[in-house]
Amino acid sequence: MSEKPGSPFSRRAVITTFAATAGAAAAAGGALAAGGRDTAPARPSGTERRTEPFHGTHQAGIATPQQRYAIFAAFDLETTDPRKGKRLTTEQAAANFQRLVQGWSAAAERLTQGRSPGPMPFARTEVPADSGIADGLEPARLTVTFGLGPDLFERIGRERDRPRRLSPLPSFGKDRLEAAWSGGEMLVQVCGDDLQTVSRAFRTMRSRAPGVARLRWSQQGFLGMFGDSTPRNLFGHKDGTANPRPGTPEFDDAVWAAADEPAWFSGGTYLVFRKIRMDLPKWDTSTARTQDQTIGRRRYDGAPLSGGHEFTTPDLRKTGPDGKPLIPADSHVALVRDVPMLRRSYNYDYGFQALAEPISAEHDHAEGADHDHGEDMPEHSGGGHSSYDSGVLFCAYVRDPAEFVRLQRKLDESDRLNAFIQHTGSAVFAVPPGVRPGGHVASALFTARSHLLAARARPRHG
Amino acid sequence: MSEKPGSPFSRRAVITTFAATAGAAAAAGGALAAGGRDTAPARPSGTERRTEPFHGTHQAGIATPQQRYAIFAAFDLETTDPRKGKRLTTEQAAANFQRLVQGWSAAAERLTQGRSPGPMPFARTEVPADSGIADGLEPARLTVTFGLGPDLFERIGRERDRPRRLSPLPSFGKDRLEAAWSGGEMLVQVCGDDLQTVSRAFRTMRSRAPGVARLRWSQQGFLGMFGDSTPRNLFGHKDGTANPRPGTPEFDDAVWAAADEPAWFSGGTYLVFRKIRMDLPKWDTSTARTQDQTIGRRRYDGAPLSGGHEFTTPDLRKTGPDGKPLIPADSHVALVRDVPMLRRSYNYDYGFQALAEPISAEHDHAEGADHDHGEDMPEHSGGGHSSYDSGVLFCAYVRDPAEFVRLQRKLDESDRLNAFIQHTGSAVFAVPPGVRPGGHVASALFTARSHLLAARARPRHG
Repeated sequence: MSEKPGSPFSRRAVITTFAATAGAAAAAGGALAAGGRDTAPARPSGTERRTEPFHGTHQAGIATPQQRYAIFAAFDLETTDPRKGKRLTTEQAAANFQRLVQGWSAAAERLTQGRSPGPMPFARTEVPADSGIADGLEPARLTVTFGLGPDLFERIGRERDRPRRLSPLPSFGKDRLEAAWSGGEMLVQVCGDDLQTVSRAFRTMRSRAPGVARLRWSQQGFLGMFGDSTPRNLFGHKDGTANPRPGTPEFDDAVWAAADEPAWFSGGTYLVFRKIRMDLPKWDTSTARTQDQTIGRRRYDGAPLSGGHEFTTPDLRKTGPDGKPLIPADSHVALVRDVPMLRRSYNYDYGFQALAEPISAEHDHAEGADHDHGEDMPEHSGGGHSSYDSGVLFCAYVRDPAEFVRLQRKLDESDRLNAFIQHTGSAVFAVPPGVRPGGHVASALFTARSHLLAARARPRHG
Repeated sequence: MSEKPGSPFSRRAVITTFAATAGAAAAAGGALAAGGRDTAPARPSGTERRTEPFHGTHQAGIATPQQRYAIFAAFDLETTDPRKGKRLTTEQAAANFQRLVQGWSAAAERLTQGRSPGPMPFARTEVPADSGIADGLEPARLTVTFGLGPDLFERIGRERDRPRRLSPLPSFGKDRLEAAWSGGEMLVQVCGDDLQTVSRAFRTMRSRAPGVARLRWSQQGFLGMFGDSTPRNLFGHKDGTANPRPGTPEFDDAVWAAADEPAWFSGGTYLVFRKIRMDLPKWDTSTARTQDQTIGRRRYDGAPLSGGHEFTTPDLRKTGPDGKPLIPADSHVALVRDVPMLRRSYNYDYGFQALAEPISAEHDHAEGADHDHGEDMPEHSGGGHSSYDSGVLFCAYVRDPAEFVRLQRKLDESDRLNAFIQHTGSAVFAVPPGVRPGGHVASALFTARSHLLAARARPRHG
C-alpha cells in the first residue's frame, strides 16, 4: 500500500499487466531467476488465491480447514495513559479496548479479503499505513481470530458479562511455565497458507496497539502440506485424527458455546493454548516400539495399536500374546480418548533459545522410555543442546475449558509422553462469536452492556 | 494426539470420496473439515511435487530458483573423542569430517529426490532412521547445500587445500555480533517450498552429527509466494532486483570460483551469511519519503528514485528540482551498486528473544531518519519491545568474499539504512562444487590429497 508520488500507473493496472505478460517479460530478460534451469519459482496456485469470509456466526480460523502457518500473539491493555502517565480508569480502559477491537476488526476484514489494511490510528498521514511486505501477494486463506483472556473483563468493568467458563487454567504438577509465554488479556491468532501474508497481518495488528495495548508474547507455527491427510507433529505422529468434523452435531457440541452462556457470547468458544516443548533428540533415539507404545498408535499410518486403520476406534481391552493390553493404559491415546475438542495445533521450531530452561531429566519416569541411549549419542546425553526449542503449539477449541483441565490432570499424572515433553507456556481465552457486517469483534458485549445501562437509567413504570 | 471413539468411515474411503466428489461429500458431511465452508485444505500443487537434482557441476540451492523456506545450520567438529575424552588428532578429525559429509551427502541425495534418508550411523537398529514428520509429503524442491568454514581446513590438516579467498570476515564498526549466531566450521543450508520437509531434512542432518560434530547455531527464514516477482523483505522493499540471472556470463563471473582456486574447488563458490536485525517499529513510523530515500528506490514498484521501472539502472547523477540527486549518495542503492553477487536472502521473524540485545539508538544518525515519532508511539519509544527479533538472513553467493567486505566497509560507514538495522550474526563459508554420482560433498578434496600423498610416497625417477 505504500503510496508514492507520481505513479504513471494505477496499482491495479500494473498488477494486471504483469500477470498477463509474465512470459513476455521473462523472455525479454526482465524477470528474476529465469535462466538456466527448467524449474521456476513457486507461483500462487488456486489455493493461495482463496479467501476466507470474515463475517459470520462464528469467527473464522476455528472451523476453517487448518492453514499451514500461524502466529499467535497475546496483548495486554495499557494500565496508564502513555501521554500523562496517569492510571486509566475502568471506563477509559473499556473505551481503549473497544477502540482497539474496532481497529483490529476493520483491518482484519480488509486484509482477509485481500485489501490494504486501511488507515492507521495515531500516525501522521505521511507514515505508510501498511508495511508493504505483502504487496502483490494473495490472501492465501488468511484468517484473524480474536480471543479475550480471563483478566480482561474485570479490567474493563465487564465482570458480569464474562463467559461462565472463563477462568485461568490451574497449574499442573509437571508444568514448567515461562511467564514470558503465558497468559494475556487478548489473543490474536493469525493463520494462512503464506507465512509472509501471515507475518504482515500480525504486524498490522501490532501496529494498531501502541498507546492502547502492548504485545505480551508471540509464537509462530507451521504444518506441512499434508493436503487431505492428518498433519504430523514433530514426533512424526499424526495429530488431530480424532477431531470432530465441522458441521456435525459432534463438532457443535464440542466447540460452540453452551446455551447457559451470556447472550452476547452465543456462537463463541474457548481456546486453550499450550506451548509444549518436545525433546526431539531423546525421541529420535528411542526405539520405534517405545515411540509407538508411548502414543498408543503406529507412527506409520496412525492406526491404534489394537489394530485397524487411522480412524478405527482404539480397543483398550484388546490384549497381545503376553496378555497385556496392546494399547498401554498410560499411553497418550488411552488417556485422551473421549475428550471432545477441536485440536488445531501447529508445530514450532525456534532453534536455540536462551530463555528456555533445559528439559530436565527428573520427570523422565515413563515406563516405556529408553534410558540407554547415552553412550552413542554424546550430544544428546551430555551436550549443551537441551536449550533447543521445538515442539507443538497445542490449540484446542472447546465448549468448556474444564474438559481440558480434567484431561490435563490425568495426562500430567501418568502420560508416558511426559518423558518427552514439557509444557512451557499456557493461556486460555474466550473467543467471541463472529462479526456481523458493520460490527466488530465482541461488539455484542458493548451492545448488551449499553442495553443494561439504558435499562437501569430508565425509570421503571412496572 | 487426542482420541475419540467410533468413526464409521475408513480414512482412505473418505479421502477418495473427497477428491472425486468434493461437493457431494461435503453435502453428505463425509469429508474432513468439509462442513459449512466452500474451502478445502491446501493440496500439493505441481510446484510442491517438483524435485531439484542433487548431482551436478555446482551444488543445488545456489542457482536454483529461490525456494520459500530455509534453515541454515552451522556445525563444528568435535575436538575430543566423546567415548574416551581424548583430544582428537588431525587425522582423526579429517576422518570424522569425511565420514560426516559422506553421511550428509547420502542423506541429502535421498531426501531431495523424495526418498527416505537411509540408515542412521551410530544408532541401534530398532531406532527409526527417520523422524517420520514428512511422511506423505513431497520434496517440494528441497535442496541441501554444504559449506566449509575458515577454521575447518587447519582442523583437518588441509591448510594447503584451503580455497584462496576463504578467511574470516573482518569486524565492522557497527557490528553487534553474537557469538551464538556467528562462525562455524561447516554450514548446512536447507531450502524448500514446504517448511515441514525443510525441518525434517535439517533434523536428519543434525541426527547424523552426534559423536562427530555439534550444532553451533541455526536460523530459519521465509519468503512470501511472490511467484515471478522479486521477493520483498520486511521493510516492504524488493530484495534481489539486481541479481545476475543464472546461466549468463554475469552470473558465472559473479558467483563461481575463479580459475586460480585449488582444482578440487572448481565449480565452487563462497557464501557470506549475515543475520541482520531490522527495527520494524522505527521503520514503520518513518514517512514513506524517508523509507524510499533510505533505500533509494520506491517501495511500491522497486523503481530507482531516478525513474523508470524496477530493472532500470539507477542514475546517480540525475537531480531533482532542488538540484540534489534524486537518489541520495548515502542511500542503500547508491552504495551497493556495481558489486556483483547473487543475493539469496530470507526474512526471519522470531518474536521476542532474550539473547538479543536491544537495538540501541546510538547509531541512529542517518540524515533522513525520523526522530519525532516518540510521542504518539509510546510502545516504540519507551516500551520493552526492542528485543523483538526480526529482519533478514542476508545470504550472498560470491566469487570473492573480499567484494562483500569492500562493500560492507562502505555501508558500515555511510549507509542510511544503518539507522534501521544491525548486524548481529556473521559467517563465511567456501561452498564446494557439486557432487558427482558415487561421490560426496568435497570428495575431490580427499582425492586431491590422496594424489598428493601418493605422489609424495612414490620415489621420484625424474
